Amino acid sequence: MLAQEIIKKKRDGGVLTSDEIQYFVDGVSRVDDVGASAAAQSNFTDYQASALLMAIFLNGMTVDERRDLTMAMMRSGAEVDFSHVSGAKIDKHSTGGVGDKVSLCLAPLVAACGVPVPMMSGRGLGHTGGTLDKLEAIPGFSTQISLDTFRSQVAEIGMAMIGQKPEIAPADKTLYALRDVTGTVESIDLITASIMSKKLAEGIDGLVLDVKVGSGAFMKTLEDATALAQSMVNIASACGKKAVALLTDMSTPLGLTVGNAIETKEAIDVLRGEGPDDLWLLTQALGAEMLVMGGVAKTLEAASEMMAKARVSGTGLDTFRKCIEAQGGDLRVLDDSKVLPTAKNKTAIESPTSGFIEFVNTEQIGIAALHLGAGRRTVDDKIDPAAGITFDSNHGRHGQQINRGERIATLLHSDIDQQRIDQATAAFFKAIQVRPESPVKASSTISGPSDDRQLGRITSPAS
Amino acid sequence: MLAQEIIKKKRDGGVLTSDEIQYFVDGVSRVDDVGASAAAQSNFTDYQASALLMAIFLNGMTVDERRDLTMAMMRSGAEVDFSHVSGAKIDKHSTGGVGDKVSLCLAPLVAACGVPVPMMSGRGLGHTGGTLDKLEAIPGFSTQISLDTFRSQVAEIGMAMIGQKPEIAPADKTLYALRDVTGTVESIDLITASIMSKKLAEGIDGLVLDVKVGSGAFMKTLEDATALAQSMVNIASACGKKAVALLTDMSTPLGLTVGNAIETKEAIDVLRGEGPDDLWLLTQALGAEMLVMGGVAKTLEAASEMMAKARVSGTGLDTFRKCIEAQGGDLRVLDDSKVLPTAKNKTAIESPTSGFIEFVNTEQIGIAALHLGAGRRTVDDKIDPAAGITFDSNHGRHGQQINRGERIATLLHSDIDQQRIDQATAAFFKAIQVRPESPVKASSTISGPSDDRQLGRITSPAS
Repeated sequence: MLAQEIIKKKRDGGVLTSDEIQYFVDGVSRVDDVGASAAAQSNFTDYQASALLMAIFLNGMTVDERRDLTMAMMRSGAEVDFSHVSGAKIDKHSTGGVGDKVSLCLAPLVAACGVPVPMMSGRGLGHTGGTLDKLEAIPGFSTQISLDTFRSQVAEIGMAMIGQKPEIAPADKTLYALRDVTGTVESIDLITASIMSKKLAEGIDGLVLDVKVGSGAFMKTLEDATALAQSMVNIASACGKKAVALLTDMSTPLGLTVGNAIETKEAIDVLRGEGPDDLWLLTQALGAEMLVMGGVAKTLEAASEMMAKARVSGTGLDTFRKCIEAQGGDLRVLDDSKVLPTAKNKTAIESPTSGFIEFVNTEQIGIAALHLGAGRRTVDDKIDPAAGITFDSNHGRHGQQINRGERIATLLHSDIDQQRIDQATAAFFKAIQVRPESPVKASSTISGPSDDRQLGRITSPAS
Repeated sequence: MLAQEIIKKKRDGGVLTSDEIQYFVDGVSRVDDVGASAAAQSNFTDYQASALLMAIFLNGMTVDERRDLTMAMMRSGAEVDFSHVSGAKIDKHSTGGVGDKVSLCLAPLVAACGVPVPMMSGRGLGHTGGTLDKLEAIPGFSTQISLDTFRSQVAEIGMAMIGQKPEIAPADKTLYALRDVTGTVESIDLITASIMSKKLAEGIDGLVLDVKVGSGAFMKTLEDATALAQSMVNIASACGKKAVALLTDMSTPLGLTVGNAIETKEAIDVLRGEGPDDLWLLTQALGAEMLVMGGVAKTLEAASEMMAKARVSGTGLDTFRKCIEAQGGDLRVLDDSKVLPTAKNKTAIESPTSGFIEFVNTEQIGIAALHLGAGRRTVDDKIDPAAGITFDSNHGRHGQQINRGERIATLLHSDIDQQRIDQATAAFFKAIQVRPESPVKASSTISGPSDDRQLGRITSPAS
């Protein structure tokens, strides 16, 4: 098999065979010296891979090709075996958004309801946060545990939340690094294979997808988000797994906090029966899907009820307690948020005028948090777990009324340069405007604080 | 400047600036550790270059982008200075075809008419031969001479024929190697820049292009060939050089020989006033363009007359004699072809039936010669200068009548495996069929033996 012939085929709009896709992925695995024996047989170099990635970007892939790419990437590494855990193992994946801390309250509640959740997450990059960074704000909490410990912890307490393991889909790591520098990231084919290869290797039986749409998400339009959601559901199905995707609004931040320690606190609040409504309602909706998929509830209504009970009864919080204990975290965090890192400095953001709060570009809230130290621009950046932004619950949400001089939000940060605070403030006011009229709340694109943010639901592959 | 931003721009159909193209070419030059200082400032890697090449392949370039790419590639190395030679220096470039030995008889005749010809050529690869290989069939003839010697020889005898120098457009060498393995060779944008960057660096004032079309050429259709010809004329003009392109038929081999020593002999025959008509007529047509462009003739008619006189009077042959002498070749070759390497063995190809000769796929004649040892598959292959194919002048040309058992052609070869002779014979009969009816001679696609093969002429840039 010749790499250049495979490239030419895709260049000319052809459909690649399973073997051709396998040869490509074997070569990519080889580049990083992973993937062992099969990889040694492929001569697909990195510069050939990037030419093929561009041809895929521009000419697309069929569902069969996406499935083959996903499976080949999955097989480039280990596949976790959860046959020792009875019942269907279900995970959730979010495409990422500003203030998205759903995983932290969702996994314990779902596990408490009897559905095992083996969750493997990534770190935050750019304008969206990462579950790992939020968990690691808890002193002592380790997300770097072995696959064996991961397997036994899910068996024992029903859940575990760990970092992406290098043994899982290593081809994705090499491919992503190549895509990142060759302008081939924003391809639905490649995004689908990247996400699904890692998730399917986790050994799950089903996956609930939270595909975010709006100015705070990667997919800015409902059309793009729907295409990605449909693609992922198709591929899960083609690989013999259950999947459902909720399209959810990310045109305003989720909850009232953006940062790591403060988002962890907010997630714990939800487990304690407190916290903002929008965060709880989305958690409940996603959890209900997982419970039905996991076979412990017959209907979404019954599943929603189970989620609510697990919250009110505190079994969700108990499960999170066991998880924190198993992963070495400081248990006092559940009762005393002062255990979490706290910011040395606070800078109030006050309204320059009287009017109504309108989120016009939520991505800029993520950028503002990044300036404060809450995020990373490159994978090597250090983050400040205490940094971030809290919105006022009465004057900091979309559509709320505010008077001149009242506080919209508070920037949390360490002793950073004034320049960075200025940059954060400037970004903040690119995200938020105070306008004389109440913003039109287009129900399909802008969420209110008591809205579950659902814009759509995709449950079966497109024919 | 960020490589990935440049890639994304072209990926999305944008137009690259001169600076962006320069940054790309600087990076490509760096890859090979050539191009020195400017190159050190670019971080364009080879895997980024191949992604961009694919985006260029699929999304194309404007004339301005092609010009910028050509100029940047040209500036990646040395530019020959011919200001010490008076008059306009004119070269010819052929896109390559089966049996194309025009350069060998053309350059001496044009130089004899007073137009200096500094000719830098490549080696043959695949199904087409190379001028260097043909010249090197002359014992002692060196094509590897320095740029200084090249400059002085053109000044002294009006012509020189040398191999591509590594100092000339080194970025093209790296880019071509990358294109070859990434499925990005067959792009008119990239082919134009590759050819023109090298030719413009030769220090010429004008260029006559022989763009071949048909089954024995890279461009199989008149449409593709016209697009390439127009592109090259556009770029020459955009770079301030004169250019004219003749579109010429390559659906049958040029002349009666395919190979190295035998093609050199055939070219010398033309200089001696002998040889096949089609080879002479094409040489005359291309030479006439060069003489008019060089300012020594006012009209193509007058120029054609000058070419014919240089042939009949022997001044062309004299000029070639000086060239061979200057470049160390055995002068006896002009009077005694036995000085050239001769094949140890001959295998006759006889007609299996009675009928008419029809060339259906001339590329396969090149492949047959390759099997016999006359060509190379990779740049590292050795060639046998004596190997090749001679066609019978009465029964070996398109449309000629033949009886069963009569000889169509003779395969010339050394003591090679019978398997290779069989492969050559099989390829030969993929190229030629003997049919009961005389083939339709579509004047625009199939040349006869006394035809100058011209299918079109492009002299000025498209608006």
